[in-house]
This record gives sequence, structure tokens and C-alpha cells, in this order.
Amino acid sequence: MEKLHFTYQDIHRTAQSIAERVKASDFSPDIIVAIGSGGFIPARILRTFLGKPILAVGVSYYDEHDQPTELPHTVQWIEEAERKLAGKRILLVDEVDDSRTTLEYCIRELLRHRPAEIAVAVLHDKLKEKRGVIPTEVKHYFAGERIEDRWVCYPWDATDIDEHDAARLAESSALAR
Amino acid sequence: MEKLHFTYQDIHRTAQSIAERVKASDFSPDIIVAIGSGGFIPARILRTFLGKPILAVGVSYYDEHDQPTELPHTVQWIEEAERKLAGKRILLVDEVDDSRTTLEYCIRELLRHRPAEIAVAVLHDKLKEKRGVIPTEVKHYFAGERIEDRWVCYPWDATDIDEHDAARLAESSALAR
Repeated sequence: MEKLHFTYQDIHRTAQSIAERVKASDFSPDIIVAIGSGGFIPARILRTFLGKPILAVGVSYYDEHDQPTELPHTVQWIEEAERKLAGKRILLVDEVDDSRTTLEYCIRELLRHRPAEIAVAVLHDKLKEKRGVIPTEVKHYFAGERIEDRWVCYPWDATDIDEHDAARLAESSALAR
Repeated sequence: MEKLHFTYQDIHRTAQSIAERVKASDFSPDIIVAIGSGGFIPARILRTFLGKPILAVGVSYYDEHDQPTELPHTVQWIEEAERKLAGKRILLVDEVDDSRTTLEYCIRELLRHRPAEIAVAVLHDKLKEKRGVIPTEVKHYFAGERIEDRWVCYPWDATDIDEHDAARLAESSALAR
């Protein structure tokens, strides 16, 4: 599958544009919930523009023996979630909406704590058939960009950040031709 | 106070060099504990190089009414911490060791769950008098860089990432002269 690289600066600008759309909407979050570990970096940048605290949850598709699992499971959840989430307007953040199973799983878990509202923000929404569904309780879904179903290379996964940035540059030059 | 800017690429390389030093040491972490929200981005980059899961804790110097507090307090802690931390080798991650009070607070909280070992990793250690102390149980402290006591500008706090990167460039040109 063809790769698609994003630099940190791309990610920062995309998060900034999401924040601007959140602020222009009728949804005003009380807290940001970051889905770890992919959501940590976009959530932290969103915090700069939205000024709201972050709670983190950890979700994994690997079991204790590093074997892949079909469905996501919780690695970390929120202590005293009932007290912290009930009646709150939550902005749930992840890096990418791929199969949508992680988002659905997290939204359903959060809904159990009776928040006032849940909105979703992802840097990238892949244009593909989704296995998960966004529950109807979610009225706002902010996607930074809608992208083709490519192999997305995020900068934080780069083992050589210069090569990563160069690959991104080569992709945009190819596009411009 | 004079400002000191770091780009995302600086941060990525600093985290990579910390990971190399962790791997060359006799400390091998089982899990990374990120101190939110400043530790989220360095922790996520360290995960790329160390391949270990992240648990997140939230610490704040502001109370519920946005008033500054003298001492840190916990905004989020780890559910079932006893089960998740007992006997584990923890790498505790934050962006900067400033007054050291946050690190001391988090280390003492983690020690209550009887981990096998705690090591500390920070991107930057400020060369200044510290109000907090690193408890003697901590045998490894990895600082990406030791820096003067300046006003550090991290890229994730930038409201204009181009201006931020330009400011960093101007600082290094000034240094080179």
C-alpha cells in the first residue's frame, strides 16, 4: 500500500484547524479525552488552542503476550470516571479514524458515565468502509482531513525524522507535478 | 527572561537520544508513565524507540477554579495502580525538570504502589536550584539536555508554528555568530 507522510508541522496545523472549527461550532468542550497512545500528540496540541484539561485512556489491540486481538480492550481507564465525566461535554481525540472500532468502543464506554455530550476529533478520517459506527448520541464529528485509504506515516513513529520529512517533501513534489 | 525555542524535530531527536541511553544502560523499562500534559509528546516519541506501553497520569498546579496552587495535585491517576505497577520497572517521563516538585510528587505517588524500579526521563533539565528532590530509590535519571534557566518554548504550545520555527532558527543563527 502506498504511504502518506505527515510532518509534525502538518499535524500541528491540522489540529489548529480542528480547534478553530470546534470553536466556531455550537459544541464547547469541558475536557479533552485522549485515546492513547495515538491520540496523545493531537490532544496535547488541541489543548493549546482549546485551553481544556486532558484525561487519557489507553486502548490496545494486543494482549498481554503481544498477540493481536480482534477487538480493542482498555489498557487504562479514568479513575472515578463517574465523578469526572457525568454531565461533562467531552471532546474525544484520536489520530486516525480507520476502521472506526476504537472510536465506537471508546464512545460506548464514555456514554456509560453519562456525559452531557460527546464530540469526536480526529486528525484524519480514512475514506473506506467502516466496521464500527459512531453512536447517534454523537452530534459533532471533526475530521482534520479526509484521506484515501493509504498507509499513514505519523512523525512520532519515525525512527529517522529527517528521512521522514524528506519522504513527505517528495510526496508533495510528486503531487505538484 | 530570555526565551529558548525547540522545534518538534529537536524534541524528536532529543527523545531518540534519551532512548538510546536508556537502552545502553542497565535499566530496562516495562512501562512508560507519562506526566500529563507536558509529558505526553515526549512519552509518545519514546514509545517508538523503546516499544513499551504508556500509562498516563495528570498533574496540575491549578485548582477547579483555575487558581494556581502551591503544590501539584493529581488530576488523573492510574486505575488499579497496585496491580499495574507493583513489581514493574517504570520509566517516568516529563518534558522539563524545572523546580523538580512535579517529579518528586509523582515519584512518591508511584513508590506507594511498590514498583521494582523507577527511572526518570526528561527532555530538559534546567540548571537551577531545585525545590523538589529525587528520592534515593531512583537510580537512573536521563536528561536529554541540561539547559540554562530560560523561558522554554515548546512547539506544541505554539499558536503559530511557522513563527515558532523561525524564532528557533534565529536563536541558532545568533549562537553561531
